[in-house]
Amino acid sequence: MAEWQQNRARRDRRIEAGIKLAEGKIVAAGDATRLLEAVIQPGDRVCLEGDNQKQADLLSAALLAADPARLNTLHMVQSGVVLPAHLDLFERGIAKRLDYAYSGPQSARIAAMLFGGKIELGAVHTYLELFARYFIDLTPHVALIAAVSADRDGNLYTGPNTEDTPTVVEATAFKDGIVIAQVGEIVDHVPRVDIPGDRVHFVVDAGRPFFVEPLFTRDPALITETQILTAMLAIKGIYAPYGVRRLNHGIGFSTAAIELLLPTFGERLGLKGKIATHFALNPHPALIPAIEAGWVEQIHSFGSEVGMDGYIRARPDIYFTGSDGSLRSNRAFSQVAGLYACDMFIGSTLQIDLAGNSSTVTTSRVAGFGGAPNMGSDARGRRHPSEPWLKAGADADPVSPAPLRRGRKLVVQIGETFGEKNAPQFVERLDAIELADRLKLDLAPVMIYGDDVTHIVTEEGIANLLLCRSPAEREQAIRGVAGYTDVGLARDRKAVEGLRARGVICRPEDLGIDPLDADRSLLAARSIKDLVHWSGGLYDPPSRFRNW
Amino acid sequence: MAEWQQNRARRDRRIEAGIKLAEGKIVAAGDATRLLEAVIQPGDRVCLEGDNQKQADLLSAALLAADPARLNTLHMVQSGVVLPAHLDLFERGIAKRLDYAYSGPQSARIAAMLFGGKIELGAVHTYLELFARYFIDLTPHVALIAAVSADRDGNLYTGPNTEDTPTVVEATAFKDGIVIAQVGEIVDHVPRVDIPGDRVHFVVDAGRPFFVEPLFTRDPALITETQILTAMLAIKGIYAPYGVRRLNHGIGFSTAAIELLLPTFGERLGLKGKIATHFALNPHPALIPAIEAGWVEQIHSFGSEVGMDGYIRARPDIYFTGSDGSLRSNRAFSQVAGLYACDMFIGSTLQIDLAGNSSTVTTSRVAGFGGAPNMGSDARGRRHPSEPWLKAGADADPVSPAPLRRGRKLVVQIGETFGEKNAPQFVERLDAIELADRLKLDLAPVMIYGDDVTHIVTEEGIANLLLCRSPAEREQAIRGVAGYTDVGLARDRKAVEGLRARGVICRPEDLGIDPLDADRSLLAARSIKDLVHWSGGLYDPPSRFRNW
Repeated sequence: MAEWQQNRARRDRRIEAGIKLAEGKIVAAGDATRLLEAVIQPGDRVCLEGDNQKQADLLSAALLAADPARLNTLHMVQSGVVLPAHLDLFERGIAKRLDYAYSGPQSARIAAMLFGGKIELGAVHTYLELFARYFIDLTPHVALIAAVSADRDGNLYTGPNTEDTPTVVEATAFKDGIVIAQVGEIVDHVPRVDIPGDRVHFVVDAGRPFFVEPLFTRDPALITETQILTAMLAIKGIYAPYGVRRLNHGIGFSTAAIELLLPTFGERLGLKGKIATHFALNPHPALIPAIEAGWVEQIHSFGSEVGMDGYIRARPDIYFTGSDGSLRSNRAFSQVAGLYACDMFIGSTLQIDLAGNSSTVTTSRVAGFGGAPNMGSDARGRRHPSEPWLKAGADADPVSPAPLRRGRKLVVQIGETFGEKNAPQFVERLDAIELADRLKLDLAPVMIYGDDVTHIVTEEGIANLLLCRSPAEREQAIRGVAGYTDVGLARDRKAVEGLRARGVICRPEDLGIDPLDADRSLLAARSIKDLVHWSGGLYDPPSRFRNW
Repeated sequence: MAEWQQNRARRDRRIEAGIKLAEGKIVAAGDATRLLEAVIQPGDRVCLEGDNQKQADLLSAALLAADPARLNTLHMVQSGVVLPAHLDLFERGIAKRLDYAYSGPQSARIAAMLFGGKIELGAVHTYLELFARYFIDLTPHVALIAAVSADRDGNLYTGPNTEDTPTVVEATAFKDGIVIAQVGEIVDHVPRVDIPGDRVHFVVDAGRPFFVEPLFTRDPALITETQILTAMLAIKGIYAPYGVRRLNHGIGFSTAAIELLLPTFGERLGLKGKIATHFALNPHPALIPAIEAGWVEQIHSFGSEVGMDGYIRARPDIYFTGSDGSLRSNRAFSQVAGLYACDMFIGSTLQIDLAGNSSTVTTSRVAGFGGAPNMGSDARGRRHPSEPWLKAGADADPVSPAPLRRGRKLVVQIGETFGEKNAPQFVERLDAIELADRLKLDLAPVMIYGDDVTHIVTEEGIANLLLCRSPAEREQAIRGVAGYTDVGLARDRKAVEGLRARGVICRPEDLGIDPLDADRSLLAARSIKDLVHWSGGLYDPPSRFRNW
């Protein structure tokens, strides 16, 4: 029978090797590298916890300090490749193969290392997709995770940044893997049990908090008038007519502008209670004014946001919180909610091609997908109707008999015709295709495919791709909102006018919006300080966002 | 500030009302109804835990015994409507509105009650979709759940049937709802912590185990030779050429036949290790021979199966198990795995129309969707390639440039041309459409839409819908495997022969399969007793499946 319990026997041998360095389950920070050398084996699949927000940074450094003669050729299976150490592991030969989802700040270096053959790439996933594979064919042998505190039984308190931890632990611990947590402190009783101790084998006392990036904080002072205009177009031209109440906002200034226009522009349009009431969303500081003005009923969050803890604790009617009073986030469930329970995803991208395919990848940067492709795709397994979803389905297919016609998820790309560094957002051919050629990838790293996108919003207007009846119409609809980019200049003027007459393209004036009204005075908060004020002093922004 | 903490204040008042009936958190079974009357309010959203397997049956009975003058117009938000009591709640007026996912044994009665207006239907969901809404707009105010045991702090041990519990509890407890668990016994220490006690407010000591249905047990003695033939076709005509290793099998005898043919027919084809190695699957007894023969590497399960506990405990290399040695199932994660990490879903249905739309709903039975639409749909948010997925994508679209061509999930419908009670599986029009008309539903309850189905397998052969280039071709491909049903008889013989010449339709002889070879001697186990033997006596089937 023992032949069927080899993983368990292997796990027990590893625990035995590690336990010599531990007092009970507790290991000193200085012994972390020795612990990892004792329990990890070459070739192991290792999840080093980290996403776009929280990082198991101490364990990351400890793993990097390991002797490559003992620890090598690891297969890293993790949400984020974000810290320099995550890539240094590959430089040192400790890690060899990589399956991941997001690599924002390391996107240039990861591209260079992929080109140089220093990383053997499995695939770039969405978060939820990678989590799915944790239970099928990428189950970690070892999980290195991060928590706020632990008790001596190994019960963990993650605090507001619960994020990926329960999912990683579930996949690892229940498949006879090893779970090692770094914690900020050892306490007698954790404020709440985010992870039960019987799933945790070792606890490393880091003596300091894990690193968290305030990724979802956008300073209202940096929002441009063009972004305000696109936000007005989105609210009046999409949110209002579809009646979108359940949604996700991507990261970025365009959606921050929408959040800050709800209590002003949105209020004047009489939309309160009719749009934007239920969110799958991180605790964006920019949403504070809309919450305070009574717009928002409920928010479920992927992770937390630095500085928002006090505000969240005081607003449990809005957020999910635990018995300790602080946020309980959960990336897996919030991604599921974004996929199946939201009627709209709206976000920004770097490049959009003539078919509507979009990507944040360029030839020199592989940013990863994060959650966008999951939430920015039509959920074909969805079976419950809602008004926005049915209306979008009828837009796309006015012909089929209603009871057999599916609805459609609204997937909106919002941005300026010329984006960062004046690079055109619209291109004939995505850089992602060249990248796929050079790296011999089976798939170009497309963030959102054209057949899933329903609307594109720029300062030129809204292109409703649901109403396009052919690829040629779609192309002209996209060119029609691409402004003075090469793609826009090459439009067929007559075709574009025809699309406008049919309402496929909506210019600001078609919606009764005067671009001159797109003024910063419309923003409910014009600075971080304004947000603090709206929050009644409960929002405590990180110092880099303070100038007072 | 208190205006933002109304839910918490309401929860605390409810706990205060309930605590009078409790010793600590423990409430006697005889006080369960009084407890529910004390903590639930009219109009509440209530999740009464139950799916196609486990049931919080004591709490269900306790709720039914409540006084409708005190407890009424509840909005039930739950996976399964399975026990008679679940519907009696509506008869008595205790419940009014329903959002659910599955109602197998109650499908006739629920249909009658919907027609009679006794139930106000929200929507019929998939499991994962309903879970998603728990975090957005259907968050339960009260969750009534079931576990094996609890300690006095409320820590719960669910045993192998963890299933929906962690998801239901997460959505309820972290949104200031009330969690009440029925448990089989109170113990000093639970064998493992499936649910931490700080998420559980009351524990009702049922003094007996919760009810579990052995839904996934199929007696090999009942497998027909036609089912064996369709299983041979599927293995040789789909599993082998696509190289499907990661998959989910639906419930039913057709897929049980496949499981039992792997170590015989599959072995002779040299497919061991090349197909069917990683599953999102309940612990099907019919898979025991394949596991014992070394076919299977890993299985993650939605729930457990009655009688399989001893076998699972002895095979932790295959299953996910906890520190106590027994299965850890998790419906939410297994559904996510089925959606994003599996290359194939194969299952059966009741009716298929000419477009390939299928449904298990008839005009007199509303069975619910369960997990099929989630796993049996193309996962458009998927971004990692695999050979089966890329090949299916290329089948569907040989023209697009490879790096921009997406793969496709294989979604296979397998069944006999004439199904249960000799009813034809193929119909011109789904009964689901008439049902939608009669109930004024926005959507006909379609289980799997035609544009997601890739293959249909009957004893007449395989129709590969990926290769069809028009709706007309798709219709003839379907008619071509519909045999002597009216739909089959109305086929255009010439068109069907043309499709066969192109490989769109594959007859048994085209695959070198002689229907006369489809013999019960091919089954690795021909009875439940054989399965027990294969398991080395570890499988302990429920008595109703024993005839020795």
